[in-house]
Amino acid sequence: MNSYSSKLLEEAVNELSRLPGIGKKTALRLALYLLKKDKPIAITLGESLIRMRSEIQFCKKCYNISDAEICNICANPKRNTDLICVVEDIRDVMAIENTGQYNGVYHILGGIISPIDGIGPNDLNIEPLVKRVGEDQPQEVVMALSTTIEGDTTNFYLFKRLKDSGAKITTIARGISIGDELEYADEVTLGRSILNRMPYENTIER
Amino acid sequence: MNSYSSKLLEEAVNELSRLPGIGKKTALRLALYLLKKDKPIAITLGESLIRMRSEIQFCKKCYNISDAEICNICANPKRNTDLICVVEDIRDVMAIENTGQYNGVYHILGGIISPIDGIGPNDLNIEPLVKRVGEDQPQEVVMALSTTIEGDTTNFYLFKRLKDSGAKITTIARGISIGDELEYADEVTLGRSILNRMPYENTIER
Repeated sequence: MNSYSSKLLEEAVNELSRLPGIGKKTALRLALYLLKKDKPIAITLGESLIRMRSEIQFCKKCYNISDAEICNICANPKRNTDLICVVEDIRDVMAIENTGQYNGVYHILGGIISPIDGIGPNDLNIEPLVKRVGEDQPQEVVMALSTTIEGDTTNFYLFKRLKDSGAKITTIARGISIGDELEYADEVTLGRSILNRMPYENTIER
Repeated sequence: MNSYSSKLLEEAVNELSRLPGIGKKTALRLALYLLKKDKPIAITLGESLIRMRSEIQFCKKCYNISDAEICNICANPKRNTDLICVVEDIRDVMAIENTGQYNGVYHILGGIISPIDGIGPNDLNIEPLVKRVGEDQPQEVVMALSTTIEGDTTNFYLFKRLKDSGAKITTIARGISIGDELEYADEVTLGRSILNRMPYENTIER
């Protein structure tokens, strides 16, 4: 005999346990929580997941997720379309937006070149980026990818593809994190930050 | 400006983060996972949660969750209705069912007496248990609650309410866990296990 006394519960547990990082035990705990709480909590959750998955779109310009054909960043006339920031996924967009320091637009690659995971340039939104840069002729493309080997590979590949487009190709600054103590910094970062030293005026907050 | 580029995503994240142990960051990770995967995964999850919450019932006899008025344990003619096992919640039912060692029926209290959390006897399915024992006249009621102070309090309260019912009132055996080494056992458990020593024949697996 199955130890679930309810097929409905069993189904919900099975579906919840498909989520990453959620095993059968956690899934059961979540399902029982939803059963214990008022009905609307489970119903609204279910409906919002269905609505999100059925109605959400990807912005035709930058591949950000969006409720309309063009996302509200691309559609905002106050954003500087001469500056395109290339990021891995939409979490990076959120992180950069939260800084309040960026006023350009984005291009979401949807991942990073990683041969070990079988992800090559054709699995990412790189062709659309090359086409977009060719058509829109932005002044600058800033690559904001992870500072890992995969990030470096992707940066290098993007640079090769974009260097003749006329746009200036930059990457986000790398160096010692603000608040870090030098003695604990890793030697690669510290070494690079000495090589790439910058005028003191640039570090004064404007 | 809000850092979510989509209202639909924001809603889903808000609803997911109501679940226990799931914060905004995890909720966002789950929502993005659902967006990345094929549509049916999110849709089926949503639908199964809605169906579970709208259709599941509590068994009228034992308060176990059930797809029908009477759960499939109470409805099973092979179960021994002369033996009622009182547990805290349905996870305990599953745990006991998984042992394959129990053939009686259950009664789910829906919690445990815990003054610190504001849970008194009237918040639990204790009245229905007293009524059920009076009506069905089982031979034995075995209390399988946690071996905590709250569990002991609840056991004592149940004992007081049931002792004149004619049923034998028992609790699950307490002692050294199977596989445990004596030197690491806590002294309360060890002391009690010496006081409550049992005939060797009882320990031989049948």
